Amino acid sequence: MFETVTTLLDWLGVVVFAVTGALVASRKQMDIVGFALLGTATGIGGGTLRDVLLGLPVFWIGEPAYLVACVLVSGVVFFTAHIPHSRYRALLWLDAVGMALFAVIGAEKALLAGVNGIVAVAMGVVTATFGGIIRDLLGGEIPVILRREIYVTAALLGAATFVISMAFGVSRELSTGAGFIIALLVRAAALQRGWSLPRYRPRPGQGDN
Amino acid sequence: MFETVTTLLDWLGVVVFAVTGALVASRKQMDIVGFALLGTATGIGGGTLRDVLLGLPVFWIGEPAYLVACVLVSGVVFFTAHIPHSRYRALLWLDAVGMALFAVIGAEKALLAGVNGIVAVAMGVVTATFGGIIRDLLGGEIPVILRREIYVTAALLGAATFVISMAFGVSRELSTGAGFIIALLVRAAALQRGWSLPRYRPRPGQGDN
Amino acid sequence: MFETVTTLLDWLGVVVFAVTGALVASRKQMDIVGFALLGTATGIGGGTLRDVLLGLPVFWIGEPAYLVACVLVSGVVFFTAHIPHSRYRALLWLDAVGMALFAVIGAEKALLAGVNGIVAVAMGVVTATFGGIIRDLLGGEIPVILRREIYVTAALLGAATFVISMAFGVSRELSTGAGFIIALLVRAAALQRGWSLPRYRPRPGQGDN
Repeated sequence: MFETVTTLLDWLGVVVFAVTGALVASRKQMDIVGFALLGTATGIGGGTLRDVLLGLPVFWIGEPAYLVACVLVSGVVFFTAHIPHSRYRALLWLDAVGMALFAVIGAEKALLAGVNGIVAVAMGVVTATFGGIIRDLLGGEIPVILRREIYVTAALLGAATFVISMAFGVSRELSTGAGFIIALLVRAAALQRGWSLPRYRPRPGQGDN
Repeated sequence: MFETVTTLLDWLGVVVFAVTGALVASRKQMDIVGFALLGTATGIGGGTLRDVLLGLPVFWIGEPAYLVACVLVSGVVFFTAHIPHSRYRALLWLDAVGMALFAVIGAEKALLAGVNGIVAVAMGVVTATFGGIIRDLLGGEIPVILRREIYVTAALLGAATFVISMAFGVSRELSTGAGFIIALLVRAAALQRGWSLPRYRPRPGQGDN
Repeated sequence: MFETVTTLLDWLGVVVFAVTGALVASRKQMDIVGFALLGTATGIGGGTLRDVLLGLPVFWIGEPAYLVACVLVSGVVFFTAHIPHSRYRALLWLDAVGMALFAVIGAEKALLAGVNGIVAVAMGVVTATFGGIIRDLLGGEIPVILRREIYVTAALLGAATFVISMAFGVSRELSTGAGFIIALLVRAAALQRGWSLPRYRPRPGQGDN
């Protein structure tokens, strides 16, 4: 029963990220194949790197439905991307949902593979951010980690919440929910209120280069 | 006997892509080590990602001759890149041949590894395009998937032709030839006549950001 | 006993590269999570690609202390990066030390995995350069292989020295030391005296595009 929920959330994450990839393609006025490529790379990128690092079979190799879903979703965006009032706002919020889902699911898959909790948190962050990094590099946008508002931090907190909660014996359902909500809330606050962490500032009169 | 042909085509693809990497190095006026690095990364990049994703041993790890060939070819380009009338035209046409070869060979290696036909087509596209993406990212050129004319589409059609033809029981020789010719013709048409797919266009007065 | 030395050098390489990643983060005025991410990706990036290509378990998956060390070191840099007289000089010299360490250790780990000497040299180069390439791509700096002075060449000479020395039956201790010193000296000469290899120059009146 819970397996089904995890699988559903995983699918949801892939599809939501595929939409963000296709939205970047629309901002760059690509053709439909560019949409499919950017949508698919964004949807499956994070989970692919996670599986390669963990030494697991890459999740979509044995399951072509993931590729099909990414391509279909990208095609739908090609014909409907003009509908949302602001494509950029839509992209940011969908990306937040995908990030929060993948932070938890990435950490969970890593724990199931038997790794240490710290490595599991790192895998949550990798899964949550790498698809977006590919999207931004290939789409010629500024990579997410260079932007000013909180992003990686939200993924980190969500994955850590999940892993710590599991370590304290909380049920997988509750831990998943808690991690997802923490990641999403922190990112939402960053988007709504411009939350950001203090940045490094060079001291005047010191080595500044 | 056919193994030999496949192996020959594979080698041809690696060498041809290595030349394109070295030609980009010449356009950036790199030194000879830069030529070797960019030539080698371009020559083996696509096949490397394919093997990592499929969970196979990376093809050049057990076969140093691939590295040697890429380095030698890059060295030859270092001393002869001034000969072609237009290095940029040479680069585009060699890249087209390499792309068409790798689209088919990537799909074939994936089918031999036992994956689904859809995943095999994706592997053909990955093998055909990833070397060029590395080349363009490292060489500071605009990545191939952002360019206006048809490129990924040609790889996709070539790989799909091969996989569908194999599924209908056509011999491997014929399927390979058909896939290669389709990919090359489509790309040639794009280069010669500027073929491109319709691009996404934002609708006026709608969400345009 | 020698195992201990190799392990120490490996750790030193990871930490030194993590510092260079964090220094790039300081140049880009990132927040502390950006420091941790860039420091960690730079510290473990080269070894990670090496292990994935060789088909070995990724070294930090079973050893969370690597991640912890990278994060801690990045945090220290966040609070102390104003101290060196020139952060850019510090970055260049630490990067040289890390590159020289990883060129030898990468080649050694490859030899231990049973690959051919030529492939081992390539693995030394990959281990020594890939962390810096990730750092520069994510940090928005010009990738190291596009810069004018000698860099990849130093890694190549260091790794080759180690592999050839081992092939002639020299002890692992001496081979390691010799490879490290060659790589570091060549890079130091490039930094101090601006050593560079001759670059490709287009011939006048010839194919110039």
